[in-house]
Amino acid sequence: MGSRVARPEATAGDARRLAVVDLGSNTFRLVVFEYRPGGPFRLVDEVREVVRLSEGTPPGAPIGPEATGRAARVARLFAGFCEGSDIDEVRAVATSAIRDAPNGDEVLQAIIDAGLPARTVSGDEEARYGYIGAVNGTTLTDGLVAELGGGSIQVGLVEDRLLTRSISRPLGAVRMTDAFMAGDVQTRDNVRVLRRHALDVFHLEPWISGTNRMVAMGGAVRTLAAMAQKASDYPLGEVHGYLLERDALRELIERMTAVPRRDRRKIPGLKSDRADIMLAGAVVVDALMQASDLERIEVCAEGLRWGVFWEAFLAPADPPLVDDVRATSVRDLAQVYGYDRPHCEQVARLAVDIFDGLARLGVHDGDPREREWLHAAAILHDVGTLVDYNDHHKHGHYLVLNAGLPGFRHRELVIIAQLVRGHRKSIQSPGALGALLKPRDEERILRLAAFLRIAEQLEVGRARAVTGIDCAIAGDTVTLRVRAHGDVDVAMWSARQEADVFKRATGRQLAVERG
Amino acid sequence: MGSRVARPEATAGDARRLAVVDLGSNTFRLVVFEYRPGGPFRLVDEVREVVRLSEGTPPGAPIGPEATGRAARVARLFAGFCEGSDIDEVRAVATSAIRDAPNGDEVLQAIIDAGLPARTVSGDEEARYGYIGAVNGTTLTDGLVAELGGGSIQVGLVEDRLLTRSISRPLGAVRMTDAFMAGDVQTRDNVRVLRRHALDVFHLEPWISGTNRMVAMGGAVRTLAAMAQKASDYPLGEVHGYLLERDALRELIERMTAVPRRDRRKIPGLKSDRADIMLAGAVVVDALMQASDLERIEVCAEGLRWGVFWEAFLAPADPPLVDDVRATSVRDLAQVYGYDRPHCEQVARLAVDIFDGLARLGVHDGDPREREWLHAAAILHDVGTLVDYNDHHKHGHYLVLNAGLPGFRHRELVIIAQLVRGHRKSIQSPGALGALLKPRDEERILRLAAFLRIAEQLEVGRARAVTGIDCAIAGDTVTLRVRAHGDVDVAMWSARQEADVFKRATGRQLAVERG
Repeated sequence: MGSRVARPEATAGDARRLAVVDLGSNTFRLVVFEYRPGGPFRLVDEVREVVRLSEGTPPGAPIGPEATGRAARVARLFAGFCEGSDIDEVRAVATSAIRDAPNGDEVLQAIIDAGLPARTVSGDEEARYGYIGAVNGTTLTDGLVAELGGGSIQVGLVEDRLLTRSISRPLGAVRMTDAFMAGDVQTRDNVRVLRRHALDVFHLEPWISGTNRMVAMGGAVRTLAAMAQKASDYPLGEVHGYLLERDALRELIERMTAVPRRDRRKIPGLKSDRADIMLAGAVVVDALMQASDLERIEVCAEGLRWGVFWEAFLAPADPPLVDDVRATSVRDLAQVYGYDRPHCEQVARLAVDIFDGLARLGVHDGDPREREWLHAAAILHDVGTLVDYNDHHKHGHYLVLNAGLPGFRHRELVIIAQLVRGHRKSIQSPGALGALLKPRDEERILRLAAFLRIAEQLEVGRARAVTGIDCAIAGDTVTLRVRAHGDVDVAMWSARQEADVFKRATGRQLAVERG
Repeated sequence: MGSRVARPEATAGDARRLAVVDLGSNTFRLVVFEYRPGGPFRLVDEVREVVRLSEGTPPGAPIGPEATGRAARVARLFAGFCEGSDIDEVRAVATSAIRDAPNGDEVLQAIIDAGLPARTVSGDEEARYGYIGAVNGTTLTDGLVAELGGGSIQVGLVEDRLLTRSISRPLGAVRMTDAFMAGDVQTRDNVRVLRRHALDVFHLEPWISGTNRMVAMGGAVRTLAAMAQKASDYPLGEVHGYLLERDALRELIERMTAVPRRDRRKIPGLKSDRADIMLAGAVVVDALMQASDLERIEVCAEGLRWGVFWEAFLAPADPPLVDDVRATSVRDLAQVYGYDRPHCEQVARLAVDIFDGLARLGVHDGDPREREWLHAAAILHDVGTLVDYNDHHKHGHYLVLNAGLPGFRHRELVIIAQLVRGHRKSIQSPGALGALLKPRDEERILRLAAFLRIAEQLEVGRARAVTGIDCAIAGDTVTLRVRAHGDVDVAMWSARQEADVFKRATGRQLAVERG
């Protein structure tokens, strides 16, 4: 998730720097978004300080003076940060720990006095921000969204991309650790009691069990995803878009229960400053999966803070939603890496022309998802040139996999990255990433790469000379009839060099002629 | 070599797109440089067409009508390219094949008539462009520069960064293949005869044997480097900066001689469209190494075309040379990836402060190269955020290694990349890249990483609150006394978290106090 822009491409106004501050129960975090109104954006900086507001106090008790002192100190740091790094606007929100504490107002005032203009958000608002992050970061149209913080969990029901119900309940990972898992050793009994407690809360909301999809967010969820990835040698280091299975979650719970708290930080993927609260977090997530009768959740790395960002970025839209998350992801990635738009759009047009023409002739199925992947890869095929023109196909592969394309599944990310890599030089096997592919995906990649390569060759002259391609088939030979203005001899000659790849991809001979 | 800027950092004027066209004997190549006057630049596009101007004609004979037709067709393609992709300026140069052909003027006219404004450069001019590319792409101050093309080789003598002598001789790889290695099978006799011929030419220039360094360029040299890298499982896929040993070159010559020409394309690293001319190219390079009495050459990927670019970019400087290639490489890479300059410069200042302070106290040697690496890594430590803020230390590692830093050795590139990677999270072993390191480099990396991490923590608030650091030592404890304005409690607390790394790096305890 390097960045995305939510609106039509624009040459845009001045760059703005927005600091979003999340004053959570476990952690205070400041993130900086740099964007141009209507232009692309990036998350460029982050400071994270563990504060543990509720530490040392019983549930429902006021936040103690030491914790308040830590909060004020970090607030002062953040205020200095905003001043020192040219922040145009600060949006700081306090959540459950401050909202629910009897002396929350005083703590908030201490934060404001330290120079950080903050406000407390209600549980409904918090749920709404998470929902905005989820719907703009995935393709969710109908289903649940859930965000687990240190103090509370928010669960919402999304119908037709709108939030129609939501709850905020004090089941956060820090709070549940204090209440149910205080000692150094936890047993299955502790797990059972907490699960029962969480289930009792969730069962009060019958709508939680009526969907077939859930997007989950929050630091604890991201950590669980990273742990599950490490445990299964998952070949991609990206938690956003990861599908966390309930079986894998239960194994993690077993694994954490099996060792004392102080040894849990040795479990791969578990950050040491969360090691003590993850068991409770995992059990709450597990209970939610049980209550919702879902066997997997879709991890989204963009929750509350992103919701706050989107609200600023897309104002005055309400709710501030991106129209087409997938198309936007592709265009934004291309924009951030400075793509040559006329060239890439021409290659995309020609590649899709070939795809459509050959689908009509029955050379392949014309699967609309394949068409979308091909288009995305064509738009992104040159992004790697920002690293180095040499080997830019390899660099593009790296950038697509690591910057990510919110809205696409990991499998699709691998397919698009493989196409970017295969747009020139030899076509490579996906290696370890093959574990994310489905049967016959490698065939699909080869076929789409062949179309992309031919399109790229037909645009070798960057003159957009080819205006269209008509496909014909006779015997085992496919003929591409090229409509063009001007001389396209070299382009056609270059396209013919792809005959070998085309043959491997389709089993047919390739002819390229002037139409 | 993603890009570099040669002048003081500037907010710069409008972006310009310069097409440099190299009308060579084997290949016509167009490359596009995008730059802002005084700002950073990138090589953003390239088209390469194999033309083989001399194919089918005996040495000294006119270029035939078929080859002229190919030349005109590619020139038309390039002219269309420039029109279609918003090129502001075209600089097209014809070299040896056209310069030396009896009908070169006619061929040049055919190219101009096809719409490409080209000129023929003399051998001296060609040598000068190669020299500019070499001196701006490496740290060469005194030694030889050589560029091997399809038609000719240029060799120059550089003294105090100025070109004091040069020759251009018709020993190009295509020409020598035609003259000495025409058939499908070559024996050691063919090799011996060509080497003798080349040596006879080089021995006429006694200055060739008087230096201790040679920078070599040209497509054949890059290909030889890639072949040698593949043969030795070299862990970095970057030919620029590679040191090609004469032993390795001789092995490649043996290997090529051992198989018929048609099978040579199977040798890893050898592009199929060069497979037939590489043996002759290798022998000419080997003869030059013998004549110069050098056991290795330093491969530079930036020759003629880059010389033409630098002349345009740095006009009216003559010769158009970058003052400090290494410092410029670092700054340009940072600029292209949009670094946060005040933050990075502050981290660099603090890191170097710690480095200098601890050197004075005898905690380490204060090696000035280490100081330079530390500074470079501090300037570059956040470049990976352009890919994704998450794991930006890993992405920065990738970018530094793959975009490259001209002027730095591969070993140094690995050290700087490891420091970028180690500026946060855990410090990782270099893995396969360790093969490029010297003994004790890992210790150096750990030490410098410790200083960088402390500096980064002291700037956690991005407020540049720390104005200086005084170092003191008592027993086994090093104390950093922090001079600062405002509250730096959190920053000092964060810096103390690096005590473990500091201990591993220096064997000492770390204390951080307000000075």
